[in-house]
Amino acid sequence: MKIVKLKDFKINDSFEEFYNWLQKDLNQVNKIILESLETDSSLITELSNHIIGSGGKRIRPLLTLATARLCHYSGNRHLTLASVIEFIHTATLLHDDVVDGSKKRRGKKTANFIWGNKSSILVGDFLLSKAFKILINDGSLKCIDIVSNVSEKISFGEVKQLMSIGKLNVSESDYLEIIGFKTAELFSAACQLSSEISEIDFTKKKSLKDFGYFLGIAYQIIDDTLDYFSEEKISGKEIGNDFKENKMTLPLILFFKRGNKKEKNLIQHMVQNKKLNDSDFNWVSEKMKNYDILDDCLQKARHFSIMAKDSLGTFPDNEEKRKLINLVNFLTHRKN
Amino acid sequence: MKIVKLKDFKINDSFEEFYNWLQKDLNQVNKIILESLETDSSLITELSNHIIGSGGKRIRPLLTLATARLCHYSGNRHLTLASVIEFIHTATLLHDDVVDGSKKRRGKKTANFIWGNKSSILVGDFLLSKAFKILINDGSLKCIDIVSNVSEKISFGEVKQLMSIGKLNVSESDYLEIIGFKTAELFSAACQLSSEISEIDFTKKKSLKDFGYFLGIAYQIIDDTLDYFSEEKISGKEIGNDFKENKMTLPLILFFKRGNKKEKNLIQHMVQNKKLNDSDFNWVSEKMKNYDILDDCLQKARHFSIMAKDSLGTFPDNEEKRKLINLVNFLTHRKN
Repeated sequence: MKIVKLKDFKINDSFEEFYNWLQKDLNQVNKIILESLETDSSLITELSNHIIGSGGKRIRPLLTLATARLCHYSGNRHLTLASVIEFIHTATLLHDDVVDGSKKRRGKKTANFIWGNKSSILVGDFLLSKAFKILINDGSLKCIDIVSNVSEKISFGEVKQLMSIGKLNVSESDYLEIIGFKTAELFSAACQLSSEISEIDFTKKKSLKDFGYFLGIAYQIIDDTLDYFSEEKISGKEIGNDFKENKMTLPLILFFKRGNKKEKNLIQHMVQNKKLNDSDFNWVSEKMKNYDILDDCLQKARHFSIMAKDSLGTFPDNEEKRKLINLVNFLTHRKN
Repeated sequence: MKIVKLKDFKINDSFEEFYNWLQKDLNQVNKIILESLETDSSLITELSNHIIGSGGKRIRPLLTLATARLCHYSGNRHLTLASVIEFIHTATLLHDDVVDGSKKRRGKKTANFIWGNKSSILVGDFLLSKAFKILINDGSLKCIDIVSNVSEKISFGEVKQLMSIGKLNVSESDYLEIIGFKTAELFSAACQLSSEISEIDFTKKKSLKDFGYFLGIAYQIIDDTLDYFSEEKISGKEIGNDFKENKMTLPLILFFKRGNKKEKNLIQHMVQNKKLNDSDFNWVSEKMKNYDILDDCLQKARHFSIMAKDSLGTFPDNEEKRKLINLVNFLTHRKN
């Protein structure tokens, strides 16, 4: 078995293929989103458009669209439900940026930086309420249940993450719990919604729930790993942010477990006593090389991505499944 | 990183070293066990002695003894608590053999085969009650809580396993849940008991709890993998038992997910329509080679063993920690 290293990675067209496959559906979703944002309040419209239009990959709504195709769903409800998932995600981003005090997201100024924290918080709340309003209009209690559950879990995960800031002793199992709540549950919900509106059996529903969850875990591990090891030239985004914000993500957790006494003391001193800067980050990421941290993080992501792919084993081998498996490979081999 | 293959494995002395290190303590534990079994009922004494003396590795009580040393515990309570863990484990084995209708365990006739199912069930219950009586005598409510929790979880895991028999669609996440309950929780409890009687902080207690849990998962994955891929000459035990009993363990779960339509149909037909025999097993284990199942199972066990080892990162590097890490390596590289 070959271990995937960042440097070995060759950009391939699997995301483009995936995106093109669903582009027509996604355009419809974007239309629903824009229409839902047409309000009397220019603040809501402008701020929402700013963040929703800021160029994310739209992975979560795409998951709803793609799994609906896997389930041979033939109606239009998946478009509405995909927009609900994107609203929930966007509300989370708005609140996250306030909590983290972020000034930039995807290379653009954050909403809180432009319009202030209060506006970001309230528009986040608006998007959340909007999501539920769309859901109630759709009328499925089961779908409302899925989204209200995931919404509670995301908040819970964010609170747990906040509480763990600067706590070097956070365990790997705590970390997996946190990213489970704050990321993987929404990936899972995105897949559960389309399975809910399709005529598939319980086993397949369970498979899609697992698929989304494991993919979400793998995705977040890669995200957190890139924040230490991505080459800025390629990713186009700054790295070291999690470290500078004292966030306990997987690379730092492993380093604090594996480091020697001197290294542990030094990092403890760093985290407790000062605002962390680039040279602290360079020291830490250099030291991590002695403990196989990059390789092990990628291997852990790979573990979950294999679980995600095997979850689809209950579906027949067809083109839709192949595209979803390619998506898993793309997301867990990406460089940014 | 090197992937461990069964054939690459060289027997080393790490278990012998580990065993010798704790032999004096283990002798004391055995003495407590024998004394507790001295009753007026010759059936209880003989049957219990038969199963307890049947040559297991005593991994679970050894974990209590070893982690007590890691915590620099200096009293005698760890000896009693280790015996409690062995009692719980033995009670489970007695009931398991009845449920599975097993005739042999570790090359010897099972208790149910010699004394009948009723005796095995009742002596199992006796050992369970005995464990709690010893615990109440020890007097720690916290320890009683740990053991009563794990006892409930083991039964729950066994019930879930029973319910999953022959269900080819069982998911990997179901499997991980089942082995978590039926195996990993007891490994974890064995470590929690010694952490409870030692003066260590919350973080270290959490680390030991995780350590035991992850080691238990890795251990069970290896166990289930060996039942498909061990060479009988080396292991000295028959293989293919799980398959013939229609148990849904990891290799079969992965094969049913990865196999092509024809293979899925064939195995479905096998499981539903007849008593499975050696030639069915040979077909399945041969087919598994096309889907990297051995490698992937070992890799998954390795994933959890790395997590177990990293959990100990909160303890200083010393001889006790080194011995525990060697134990993890031994247990996840073992051939029988």
